[in-house]
Amino acid sequence: MQDRKNRRSGGRAGNARRTSASAIEQLTWRQVINPDHPTEPLDEAGVQAVHNAAMRVLEEIGIEFLNDDAVAHLKAAGCIVEGQNVRMGRDFVMEMVAKAPAEFTITPRNPDRAIRLGGKNMAFVNVSSPPNVMDLDRGRRVGDFESFSDLLKMTQYFNCIHVAGGYPVEPVDIHASVRHLDCLEAKLTLTDKVVHAYSLGPERVDDVMEMARIASGMDHDTFFSEPRLYTNINSSSPLKHDWPMLDGSMRFVKLGQPVVVTPFTLAGAMAPVTMVGAVVQSVAECLAAIALFQWLNPGTPCVMGTFTSNVDMKTGAPAFGTPEYVRATQMTGQMARFYGLPLRASNACASNAPDGQAVWESMNSLWAAVNSRVNLVYHAAGWLEGGLIASYEKFVMDCEILQQFERYFESAITATTEADLAVDAIREVGPDGHFFGVQHTQDRYQEAFYSPFLSDWRNYEAWQEAGAVWTAERANKVWKDILAEFQPPPMEDAIREELASFVARRKSEGGAPTDF
Amino acid sequence: MQDRKNRRSGGRAGNARRTSASAIEQLTWRQVINPDHPTEPLDEAGVQAVHNAAMRVLEEIGIEFLNDDAVAHLKAAGCIVEGQNVRMGRDFVMEMVAKAPAEFTITPRNPDRAIRLGGKNMAFVNVSSPPNVMDLDRGRRVGDFESFSDLLKMTQYFNCIHVAGGYPVEPVDIHASVRHLDCLEAKLTLTDKVVHAYSLGPERVDDVMEMARIASGMDHDTFFSEPRLYTNINSSSPLKHDWPMLDGSMRFVKLGQPVVVTPFTLAGAMAPVTMVGAVVQSVAECLAAIALFQWLNPGTPCVMGTFTSNVDMKTGAPAFGTPEYVRATQMTGQMARFYGLPLRASNACASNAPDGQAVWESMNSLWAAVNSRVNLVYHAAGWLEGGLIASYEKFVMDCEILQQFERYFESAITATTEADLAVDAIREVGPDGHFFGVQHTQDRYQEAFYSPFLSDWRNYEAWQEAGAVWTAERANKVWKDILAEFQPPPMEDAIREELASFVARRKSEGGAPTDF
Repeated sequence: MQDRKNRRSGGRAGNARRTSASAIEQLTWRQVINPDHPTEPLDEAGVQAVHNAAMRVLEEIGIEFLNDDAVAHLKAAGCIVEGQNVRMGRDFVMEMVAKAPAEFTITPRNPDRAIRLGGKNMAFVNVSSPPNVMDLDRGRRVGDFESFSDLLKMTQYFNCIHVAGGYPVEPVDIHASVRHLDCLEAKLTLTDKVVHAYSLGPERVDDVMEMARIASGMDHDTFFSEPRLYTNINSSSPLKHDWPMLDGSMRFVKLGQPVVVTPFTLAGAMAPVTMVGAVVQSVAECLAAIALFQWLNPGTPCVMGTFTSNVDMKTGAPAFGTPEYVRATQMTGQMARFYGLPLRASNACASNAPDGQAVWESMNSLWAAVNSRVNLVYHAAGWLEGGLIASYEKFVMDCEILQQFERYFESAITATTEADLAVDAIREVGPDGHFFGVQHTQDRYQEAFYSPFLSDWRNYEAWQEAGAVWTAERANKVWKDILAEFQPPPMEDAIREELASFVARRKSEGGAPTDF
Repeated sequence: MQDRKNRRSGGRAGNARRTSASAIEQLTWRQVINPDHPTEPLDEAGVQAVHNAAMRVLEEIGIEFLNDDAVAHLKAAGCIVEGQNVRMGRDFVMEMVAKAPAEFTITPRNPDRAIRLGGKNMAFVNVSSPPNVMDLDRGRRVGDFESFSDLLKMTQYFNCIHVAGGYPVEPVDIHASVRHLDCLEAKLTLTDKVVHAYSLGPERVDDVMEMARIASGMDHDTFFSEPRLYTNINSSSPLKHDWPMLDGSMRFVKLGQPVVVTPFTLAGAMAPVTMVGAVVQSVAECLAAIALFQWLNPGTPCVMGTFTSNVDMKTGAPAFGTPEYVRATQMTGQMARFYGLPLRASNACASNAPDGQAVWESMNSLWAAVNSRVNLVYHAAGWLEGGLIASYEKFVMDCEILQQFERYFESAITATTEADLAVDAIREVGPDGHFFGVQHTQDRYQEAFYSPFLSDWRNYEAWQEAGAVWTAERANKVWKDILAEFQPPPMEDAIREELASFVARRKSEGGAPTDF
């Protein structure tokens, strides 16, 4: 059995590992393409029924837009406005939604890190926005700038993470008025991947867009000539979009920058107890915002987000990676394809530790993403406790799993050329031989199979001899090795200085209001 | 963090649990129906290419049948025989395979535990045949009759386990000559589910069939009028079927009892390094045996088995639940449907502990089973170390996961009646309310969501307060509670005595030869 010493140190296996040149051997950076036909639990009549119900919500019940500009725009568009409540006809909604592109590309400061969303494309985002951070050595604690930076380094290090999304943990040791400045400076210097801006008031959004522009080295017009960064907004379910989310997203939309709209619809809490009802509400809330955005700037990229899960009806606790979550994601996938919109979901779990439960919940969430044809997978690495904890070890474990999906998508595995069918190799080996030695194997074995960096495939005796180290403890060793060898991506000195001076100036001006 | 004491005792959570009336609340016994369309990585030309290659193996290379009776039958059928090598034309193979039923039912001594295989039906089998057993208290050790019996009790206890397959661990404290007698007596009295007989020589097969008949209380003709038990044979890949497997399976076939044919084709070792090539060889080996069986007794139920995975090319160690394994299972699923045969696969993993790796490998294997439309999932609960360890804790963890799939398959989750669409509930709650209190929720909340027995969905503070118990340690507590409350299924005293006296007589005769 695993003992305390080995859980801490990584044991003999850990020592052996230290002799290698780099922390791990990982897959190359790639645009992920999911070739599989999605799983579709709804038949055509079911899709129509969900669509019709979502349209009835928009037509008969309406959505509250807690932002006067948004309401004024929608009134001008012909919607029925009563106070903050906006009702919109299905013809208007469908006309607007049809203007959103089915696929688009976001290009960050390093154009080699551009990602394409929509269709069969898939991209993985780091864990975003937990208040707490955890690792096996220090336990759970409130997030700080050090752990924020560590997790950003892992976001950059792993090729299977495509997007530096929300803060991987909230660095609460930095005052909220200037947090976005320090965080984005770190994000733009420690990573060169697509970044995200929180829609938390005009100053923050404008600051982040300006900092991303500075990091790109481009002038304003060139920078905003195509998607460069994005924001994600959550509705205040049921049936509300709040002021800062709408303000920030409209700033993005006006500059042609993508917006992901993700209602957080826990069935039985802020959405109906039936999963289909929760999907109906989620789709209605999402389309209401996208209709507004397409009215404001037709063709701006928008993504349908889903965060429909269920609660534990005994306690009200949120649950993730459940059977109901998987089906809700698949149904929302069908609706996203019906509307021609890219889809965002998550790698979600409820477990408090990087243990078996965390992995089965995450695997359900990730298989749901795959078989729902999700394009943008939030929280793909590092999430625990329903999003309240960012875990160093879970981050590493998730990246091992993400790499396996990247390999799973490679068409080479199922190619049926004459050489793949291997009849001649079978003939050569015959009934008494072994395939290790034949040329057909020798020509292919180095690339034939996925090679994990975290799995231990030794037999029990060898594993025991090496300290009997369980997965989470092996992951503990891996993140330490990664942080020890981390090198930030290149950035011109002049750009780095311009970023720093922007941050200094904005700090001297007091940063952003904190009373939103 | 989890500490030693809590890992051992289950902590405060464990104490709280002991007050409940039964070990766990579990789902009811059910025939599982998988409604999803399978994932199909091969297009139509790909399926034809694999079929054609498998037929070329059978026509041009041939399979060795290390059993003279089998060879004589195939010679009589018109196959080309050279020594033990048998080549068969595709017309003969396809004509024979077409005689096997696409679906069939196996009815054990308790007819309520009948299972249907083929089509969309799915059934889960306990871990079968590891030499070693492991739990968190006692570590790994060689299997014995006590652990064999414990794992059988768990097989019976969990409603999500449908079949008492092979020995859940080899009880090596019982001499091989009489082991099958003690094992089957235990299996037939501790469980009332479908049982399996190893094809390990004529005496064992005949003894097991006779014992199953005695346990049923039926006469010979009634018992063998339909499928009552089954055997599973593995080819000696590459390209061989050995004597005891053929002898035993032919005894089953003559009595109309089902045979599962499962080549063990590790790509790069006993099969080609290309996954498609390994599938070709597996399909050829499987169909060769099924053609023989259909020649012997047309219409006897046969199942295509797949155990195609890859090795670690650095070490030669077998790997399971890999990306390559998932695709091989999906491709074999396409071939099984092409031939109209039910399909068997496994819940396989390579990990040496019930940890994160074990779960991600198992989840890949189980999602592969689901999206390949596998009918019979071997080793569904309890497998570790590539089948060399039967784990008490993994058994419990797997059953939690299997239950989640059973819930996932329920059509209620995706029903789109007016009540499911919930527009009226959305209207009633409006933008400022909460769904907990409304009638739509109150009418449904008790059955709305799957309720796990092993997941801990409490928040971190409550989980920490209860001892911060990780999943495997919670599972440790669960199996102890299950064994403490276990009650064997009912059996008439007369039948129990007849079984015991059969065992005593066969033991006095010396049991079965051990020189096979």
